Amino acid sequence: MRTITAYSNPLVKQVRDLRDKRHRRESGRFLAEGLRILIEAREGGRLPVLVFLAEASAAHPLVRTLIAEVEAAGGEAIATTPDILAKLSGKDNPQAVVGVFDAWDTPLDALDRTASDIWLVAERLRDPGNLGTILRTGDAVGAGGLILIGECVDPFSVEAVRASMGALFTVPVVRSEWAPFLAWLRGGPGQLVGLSLDGGDYRAAQYAAPTFLLTGNEAQGMPADYAAACDLLVKMPMLGKADSLNAAVATAVMAYEVLGRT
Amino acid sequence: MRTITAYSNPLVKQVRDLRDKRHRRESGRFLAEGLRILIEAREGGRLPVLVFLAEASAAHPLVRTLIAEVEAAGGEAIATTPDILAKLSGKDNPQAVVGVFDAWDTPLDALDRTASDIWLVAERLRDPGNLGTILRTGDAVGAGGLILIGECVDPFSVEAVRASMGALFTVPVVRSEWAPFLAWLRGGPGQLVGLSLDGGDYRAAQYAAPTFLLTGNEAQGMPADYAAACDLLVKMPMLGKADSLNAAVATAVMAYEVLGRT
Repeated sequence: MRTITAYSNPLVKQVRDLRDKRHRRESGRFLAEGLRILIEAREGGRLPVLVFLAEASAAHPLVRTLIAEVEAAGGEAIATTPDILAKLSGKDNPQAVVGVFDAWDTPLDALDRTASDIWLVAERLRDPGNLGTILRTGDAVGAGGLILIGECVDPFSVEAVRASMGALFTVPVVRSEWAPFLAWLRGGPGQLVGLSLDGGDYRAAQYAAPTFLLTGNEAQGMPADYAAACDLLVKMPMLGKADSLNAAVATAVMAYEVLGRT
Repeated sequence: MRTITAYSNPLVKQVRDLRDKRHRRESGRFLAEGLRILIEAREGGRLPVLVFLAEASAAHPLVRTLIAEVEAAGGEAIATTPDILAKLSGKDNPQAVVGVFDAWDTPLDALDRTASDIWLVAERLRDPGNLGTILRTGDAVGAGGLILIGECVDPFSVEAVRASMGALFTVPVVRSEWAPFLAWLRGGPGQLVGLSLDGGDYRAAQYAAPTFLLTGNEAQGMPADYAAACDLLVKMPMLGKADSLNAAVATAVMAYEVLGRT
C-alpha cells in the first residue's frame, strides 16, 4: 500500500475527474464511495481497481480484507488524507473509503427473463438520484434488472451509485434503445405495463409474470407510441393537486404491488 | 415592475443567500423556483413577496396574472436577466420565474386529525430531496399533513421545495419534538404505525384510520423507544442484499398500501 498526501498528485486529479461524465466515458471507470457500498460490490463480485482510504481506517478488519483482495487481484490500495478524500468525493464529510471501478455493460441478450417475475424499465430518466433509488428498490423486490431506454442519466454517476446504496453492483443494468428493447421483449413471454395518466387503477389490474414495469421521463412521461405498445397501462390514485409522483416512488409503489400479487 | 440587470445589486445577493439555511432563518423567507410551483403556491393561497422573472416570460398569461396578484398584495415583481436568474437558482438552466415567500409554521394544535385517514410522520429526516418527495407523495395520497420529529432538514430548503413539486404549499408541515407529538397523538384517535425491520408484513397488517405512518432516520431508522410507542410495526419484504429502502420510497409504498385498504 502506498501513501499519497500531495493534493497535486496527478492520480488525485484523475480520480477526482471521474465525477465528470466525459472522464468516465474516456477512462471506462467510475467512483463508488463508502465501505458499505464497497462491501456490497465485493459480494456482487466486483473489486475496485484502486481504493483510497484514510490512514486511520486501514486498521478496520473489513478494510484490511478489502485491501488484501484488491491487491491480490492486481489492484492498488492508497492511503491518503481526509482532505484528499474530501476532494475525491466532493463532500465536506467524505467517506473513509473511495473505490475506483472498471465500468461494465450488460447487453439485453445477457438477460434471462425467467430469472425474475419483475423487471424495471425506465425511459429517458434524467435524475441520477432517481436512477439509483430505482436500483435500490429493484434489489429489494428481487427485480431481474433495470433496462434504461434512450438517453438516460449515467448509472455510473457518483450520485446514482450513492443513491443505489450498492444495488448498482447487484442489479443488472442494461442500456438500450426502444426498438431493440421491444424486439427483444416480444421474442419471449413478458407483460409490458406502462405507468400512465391514461391507465386504469393499478390495484384492479391483472399482472402476468414476467412483468416489465415501464416508467417514463420525469417531466414528460412516456411518448404516445411507447404507451400504445404496452400490454397494460396503469396509474396510482392521485387525490391531491398534482398529477404525478416522483418517478422512483411510482416505480416502487408499482413494483411492490406486483410483488404482492405473486 | 422594476428591472434589475446588475449582478451586484444587493437584492440579488440577499435572495441568492436564501439558499443558505441561516439566511432563511434570519429573514423568515425562502425561495421557490419555476412557474409550475408558483402556480401551485397561488392555488394553495400563498403569493410570493418578491418574484423575479426573465423579461421574455413577462408576456406569458399565467406570469402576467401572477405579477398582477403579487403587486396587488403589496409584493414586487422584478424583471431580470437569465444570468441573474441562474445565480439565484444556482443552476445553469434556471427556471424563468423565481419567487421569494414568507415562511410559515404550523403548530400541532392546528391539525384536524379527522381531516384525513392518512398522516405522514418522519423523524430526523436528513435529505431534502426525501423530504420534498414525501410531501409530493403526501399530496397524492391526500395525507392530512407531514409531521417532522426532531432535527430534520429544513422543509423550506431549495432542494426540498423543488422535490415537493409545489406540495410544500398544499400539504401542512409541522415541526415538533417526539414527546409533544406523542402527547398530542394520544389525545385523540390515531394508530401509530412504524416502519421497522422488526415489524410484520405490511400487507398482512390491520390499519385503523386515522393512520400515522412513522418513518425513521435514513441511516439509523427510529430509536427503540419510538418503536416501542408504536401501535404497530410493519416492514416491506426485502428480497435482495440490502436491508432497507429509500425513506421516501418506503413512506410511499406504505401510504399507498394504507390508501388501498380504506
